[in-house]
Amino acid sequence: MDTRANSTELNKILGEQIPVLDKGFIRAVDYMGNDSSVVQAARVSYGAGTKKISEDAALIRYLMRMRHTTPFEMCEIKLHLKMPVFVARQWVRHRTASINESSARYSVLNDEFYFPRPDRLMAQSTENKQGSGEAMSATECAVANRLLREDAARCHANYLEMIRVDEAAGKKGMARELARINVPTNVYTEFYWKVNLHNLMHFLKLRSDSHAQYEIRCYAQTIEEQILKIWCPISFQAYVDYVRDSFTFSKQALEALRAAVDMGKFKKPDGVTDREWSSVYKIILDDK
Amino acid sequence: MDTRANSTELNKILGEQIPVLDKGFIRAVDYMGNDSSVVQAARVSYGAGTKKISEDAALIRYLMRMRHTTPFEMCEIKLHLKMPVFVARQWVRHRTASINESSARYSVLNDEFYFPRPDRLMAQSTENKQGSGEAMSATECAVANRLLREDAARCHANYLEMIRVDEAAGKKGMARELARINVPTNVYTEFYWKVNLHNLMHFLKLRSDSHAQYEIRCYAQTIEEQILKIWCPISFQAYVDYVRDSFTFSKQALEALRAAVDMGKFKKPDGVTDREWSSVYKIILDDK
Amino acid sequence: MDTRANSTELNKILGEQIPVLDKGFIRAVDYMGNDSSVVQAARVSYGAGTKKISEDAALIRYLMRMRHTTPFEMCEIKLHLKMPVFVARQWVRHRTASINESSARYSVLNDEFYFPRPDRLMAQSTENKQGSGEAMSATECAVANRLLREDAARCHANYLEMIRVDEAAGKKGMARELARINVPTNVYTEFYWKVNLHNLMHFLKLRSDSHAQYEIRCYAQTIEEQILKIWCPISFQAYVDYVRDSFTFSKQALEALRAAVDMGKFKKPDGVTDREWSSVYKIILDDK
Amino acid sequence: MDTRANSTELNKILGEQIPVLDKGFIRAVDYMGNDSSVVQAARVSYGAGTKKISEDAALIRYLMRMRHTTPFEMCEIKLHLKMPVFVARQWVRHRTASINESSARYSVLNDEFYFPRPDRLMAQSTENKQGSGEAMSATECAVANRLLREDAARCHANYLEMIRVDEAAGKKGMARELARINVPTNVYTEFYWKVNLHNLMHFLKLRSDSHAQYEIRCYAQTIEEQILKIWCPISFQAYVDYVRDSFTFSKQALEALRAAVDMGKFKKPDGVTDREWSSVYKIILDDK
Repeated sequence: MDTRANSTELNKILGEQIPVLDKGFIRAVDYMGNDSSVVQAARVSYGAGTKKISEDAALIRYLMRMRHTTPFEMCEIKLHLKMPVFVARQWVRHRTASINESSARYSVLNDEFYFPRPDRLMAQSTENKQGSGEAMSATECAVANRLLREDAARCHANYLEMIRVDEAAGKKGMARELARINVPTNVYTEFYWKVNLHNLMHFLKLRSDSHAQYEIRCYAQTIEEQILKIWCPISFQAYVDYVRDSFTFSKQALEALRAAVDMGKFKKPDGVTDREWSSVYKIILDDK
Repeated sequence: MDTRANSTELNKILGEQIPVLDKGFIRAVDYMGNDSSVVQAARVSYGAGTKKISEDAALIRYLMRMRHTTPFEMCEIKLHLKMPVFVARQWVRHRTASINESSARYSVLNDEFYFPRPDRLMAQSTENKQGSGEAMSATECAVANRLLREDAARCHANYLEMIRVDEAAGKKGMARELARINVPTNVYTEFYWKVNLHNLMHFLKLRSDSHAQYEIRCYAQTIEEQILKIWCPISFQAYVDYVRDSFTFSKQALEALRAAVDMGKFKKPDGVTDREWSSVYKIILDDK
Repeated sequence: MDTRANSTELNKILGEQIPVLDKGFIRAVDYMGNDSSVVQAARVSYGAGTKKISEDAALIRYLMRMRHTTPFEMCEIKLHLKMPVFVARQWVRHRTASINESSARYSVLNDEFYFPRPDRLMAQSTENKQGSGEAMSATECAVANRLLREDAARCHANYLEMIRVDEAAGKKGMARELARINVPTNVYTEFYWKVNLHNLMHFLKLRSDSHAQYEIRCYAQTIEEQILKIWCPISFQAYVDYVRDSFTFSKQALEALRAAVDMGKFKKPDGVTDREWSSVYKIILDDK
Repeated sequence: MDTRANSTELNKILGEQIPVLDKGFIRAVDYMGNDSSVVQAARVSYGAGTKKISEDAALIRYLMRMRHTTPFEMCEIKLHLKMPVFVARQWVRHRTASINESSARYSVLNDEFYFPRPDRLMAQSTENKQGSGEAMSATECAVANRLLREDAARCHANYLEMIRVDEAAGKKGMARELARINVPTNVYTEFYWKVNLHNLMHFLKLRSDSHAQYEIRCYAQTIEEQILKIWCPISFQAYVDYVRDSFTFSKQALEALRAAVDMGKFKKPDGVTDREWSSVYKIILDDK
């Protein structure tokens, strides 16, 4: 009898809430597989082709570099997430995951809203500055903070009032599914999110990126550092090196590089295999 | 040289806004294929197996009845939709479509909100009545209407105030991506939605159902009656007969039926083929 | 610290090969979740809406009946499968699973072929009889059996000959990826297959059906009876009752039923809830 | 009334068979959208964010470079493909497309097999040379060619014999679905394949690559050069520059580059925007 692939380190934090933003959290609830599951799948796929790569870590790094992505689909994780609705709206655009979200058609929304910290409020989006790009003043920031809090409080109070039933007074209460439309998108929601390792890393690359909105980045970076890193440490490091912190040069940019690289100074870094270095070196030499 | 599969009837309304709710719309923007594309795909798949079914309509109805769904994937449609955010949140849970939605990170949100008509406000959700199930009074309804309008107006005004730039006064303006969190989910958004015919019909079955929330049902029923019906009339009718207006009896319910059906009165309805009737009849006879 | 959802019964057979056909097998390798994971997801989704259903089994049956399918996506299973290539070709048409298959580009194909048992050889496909529908004679069957075995043996021997390297004789050997094209589709292949519970049940409904080819049905029925049934027994029973052994009546067939059912004899079967029976009863009464 | 997005150039070859390998073909059957559909979707998504990019071509190139992939999902194409089964087996591993394949359960397989040309037979796979890597001799090649042709002919003849019906002689004929298992995987099959532009380009990157097997590469390159290039010429060029002919440097390789690039010689190539060059330049400067 075999036993399930296990992750001793992830087991230690299973079910624990890791706080994100002012009232949100991430909780690893369940998982399937670990780094060895990736290796197992690759070895059945590539068979003799993988024998040359004797070490598991080297094989995982090879798969990541060559974008042989299917073995990474063999691991799966289920998270319990609590986040503002406007973040959840970005989250669900990733279609390759399973989601069960609490529904305000059935449950009453709690009075829990996201209010940005002053330093976040002040900062201009690097993506889309409509103004000067300078930070807001403390005064402007305080006004914004007050408006956000007042509007959230009033909208939620009115929501509760609309659904309130008072039979004695003939007040029937509005349907929850309708009254909830009064609530701003900084209200917190929660859901289970189940995704495989390949799709998780694709999500993390996009959402831990500096172009992603700050709030979703907080969640993505927490998953990277506090969950993925301990669940599948080898795959995580390969993801960091070959995906997250990599850079893709276009055909034209490669031409510019070739004209500017001094091959005598272009040295194989530590930890890079000869096989990998050969392919990188050839690209710059333009020796296909 | 062949030409593209065409739908003369759908061409006539291409680009026209069909109004839904108080400020929303549906616009058919582009499409690919028609009923004949379903037939073409089925005939390559089933080859000799489809020769017995000489007419295209009979073949499409057979495919729908037997849940041979892949030929319906050969048609595709692209809609431009404008709907409240809380409806869009339900919409995007269907993961087998392509979406490009306007983003409040980049554009300023218009002051356009959904306000339910009085008769909708009054009605209790059949799904989830927390109260007596009786309709709200006109007074309660008027109060709710006022609250929804005041909160939307105030939240949107404050949103505009937060992003307002006044360099002379040293007001930098908050990032749009952040200020928009102040806006309730009855604000309107818009997006392109592209989906194949099979997934569209699956979506419509779920969202034109009486269990779906009224607002999304309005969109689903508009697509059914004003778009799908004229684009692929044969597939649409098959969908109505075998999917939307069908009913699935469980193993236990079938037993109850068998004990209660008078086979002498169980007659083949007009328009049902002998082949189909035979399979239905056998189920009740329990003659597998 | 929480622990992972567990299945004591499935654990007992983890890694064991369950034989299918003459040389194939199914092996449950890993899994995530169990019946309680379905319940957990439904309760976060429907919240107060599920409180009325106090028992987990009743909730799972309700979800299955109403086709609330997302909670079933929260369970995942990974199987190791060995099957003939022509069966694998049908298998991979189901696109909502992860696959890593051994590749004949890299590994040498074993001399392992599927040869149908005489009773299978003789039987006419109910789907597609081109002849009389009568069974083949023992003689015709023996001839077919001999042809299959001779062709497989010769093709495989020639495949080995083509890839054989004999440096002394100057024989270089053909590339494996090319030589393998000589091998018939009854050769065995193997792969890991990972799928969620919802998609697994959809697959099983289609492939355990009498319209599916006998060989894939053997695999589907083995998964049903020897794996799914012990992994998620409540979901399995709900699947049998509401999906596999259910029957969908078209709009027209419902009309025929309504005219033929004696409502006095139409009695709620044991084990059916009042809520479910009410919806079934109303359909026949046509009281929407 | 609007009209559908059109491609004058693709219209000219709609329905024409473009030959691939010895007996295969690719036929563009239908499509939806063109380069302008990508732009249309991006402008609704990014709104004000796209105003800075005034030209459509620049916008498409920006989307490709930044991997904003959803606007490319707005175009769809349907191809009719004829290819050997072993190629089709690789093809269907791409799960994000719709397929209807002719089925040997229902139709009789034609006597059409793929036989590699001598130069292809001789060549060693660069991927997986088990021998010396030297080319096969003309003699070895001729033997292999003969074996492939003899085995295909014999297997197909025996297949026909097994399904042959001769009522007078009491020969019932084996079921087609079973007899076909005797046929090697170089037999030709055909299917409709419908895919969106984003998924098509992802497929082409992987399958036009030198690591892909020669036969599938022939199909991928034909689609690139004879279909995609005339259907969506701007998207195609962006795909070539930013995806197909790009190269991704790992975190470690970037370090090696930084040490070797002479910034004085690192010049913006023609046709690269200042915005793009700035991001490339910064990566080498390591100025994030």
